[in-house]
Amino acid sequence: MAGVFDNPVFPYFVFYATVVVLKTMAMSLVTAFHRITKKVFVNPEDLMDKGKGKVLTHESVERVRRCHLNDLENVIPFVLIGLLYTASGPSLGSALLHFRIFTGARIFHTIAYLFALPQPSRGLAFFVGLLATVSMAYNVLSSAKY
Amino acid sequence: MAGVFDNPVFPYFVFYATVVVLKTMAMSLVTAFHRITKKVFVNPEDLMDKGKGKVLTHESVERVRRCHLNDLENVIPFVLIGLLYTASGPSLGSALLHFRIFTGARIFHTIAYLFALPQPSRGLAFFVGLLATVSMAYNVLSSAKY
Amino acid sequence: MAGVFDNPVFPYFVFYATVVVLKTMAMSLVTAFHRITKKVFVNPEDLMDKGKGKVLTHESVERVRRCHLNDLENVIPFVLIGLLYTASGPSLGSALLHFRIFTGARIFHTIAYLFALPQPSRGLAFFVGLLATVSMAYNVLSSAKY
Repeated sequence: MAGVFDNPVFPYFVFYATVVVLKTMAMSLVTAFHRITKKVFVNPEDLMDKGKGKVLTHESVERVRRCHLNDLENVIPFVLIGLLYTASGPSLGSALLHFRIFTGARIFHTIAYLFALPQPSRGLAFFVGLLATVSMAYNVLSSAKY
Repeated sequence: MAGVFDNPVFPYFVFYATVVVLKTMAMSLVTAFHRITKKVFVNPEDLMDKGKGKVLTHESVERVRRCHLNDLENVIPFVLIGLLYTASGPSLGSALLHFRIFTGARIFHTIAYLFALPQPSRGLAFFVGLLATVSMAYNVLSSAKY
Repeated sequence: MAGVFDNPVFPYFVFYATVVVLKTMAMSLVTAFHRITKKVFVNPEDLMDKGKGKVLTHESVERVRRCHLNDLENVIPFVLIGLLYTASGPSLGSALLHFRIFTGARIFHTIAYLFALPQPSRGLAFFVGLLATVSMAYNVLSSAKY
């Protein structure tokens, strides 16, 4: 087995994996932005005006947090399965198809979630991303190497 | 150092890691199933009958979501530590023991959680899985290679 | 490309990655400790005195859980991006700087969260950790190898 790092697919995996992880991490900053602009904090020590305001939740913040958690539930499995998939020696064309469909689907999922686009836009984006990861997992498990 | 991918343990790691990540992802589908059959949605745009129904939570949905989060908290560390453990060159017998105990414990944990089996069944499954990962981490840190 | 596992940076990555993942997993035990000592359970089957007590939440438990989720949102991306960063062949000095700043920031973040230290201590620790991971991601994307 040639090893994942000499694999011509690896540089592409690195690029798409980094993009989707950065996209996931960006949710932290969007959450912080909403918390600060709307003065919605969940910890007493975060209240900026001592004595004023109280700990509460706000739908804008909760929406970003749900989007962030959905990213964790989908992007992390994509990166883990994607690494094992890259190590299984897929063709470059097939690998790029998986990486690009997943990355596109998750970027669209974030837009659909944050702007509350009408369904089934978000649901569709979620399932397309899920299918890309499951398809990679199927390729890993059915690879002749394992 | 021989590298993780030439390691005879690696194919087994790939198999068990893929199984537990797929199991984790399956929680998304179980959540979707409960949301749709019980018409319990957390986003206004997800309501299927416009004007009817309202955004609410439901214990069946919350239970699956807790199980999903517990998976993220345990399965992702297993895969990350497991990859480093495989790279540390463990014996095949010892590695298989860790992988199988963890995978078995987490499958049982999911059953115990979703069907609300009496404690300490779920707590035991949780701790057995945790111990398997901690034991791998101990092996990694005490490996002569690091 | 030399491969990540022959890289002199790899053993250091393994050490710091294992430490921060173990720290994240320790949050499970802190949560369990608070749940048991304060008798705060979220599942009906977890109630220890049948008939007595009820399912509820408690601020101490919720605080640890928020800290745990924040770890998942930051430590997992660090390990994933850190692996790709190590594979990109950074200098040992630069890599150690990233790993140590991140690990220190996250340990301090946990202390600031669990003991509710006055802000901006926790916010600062969060941003320092985030910057370390983003800086590694920038190095990965701008590496001549990709």
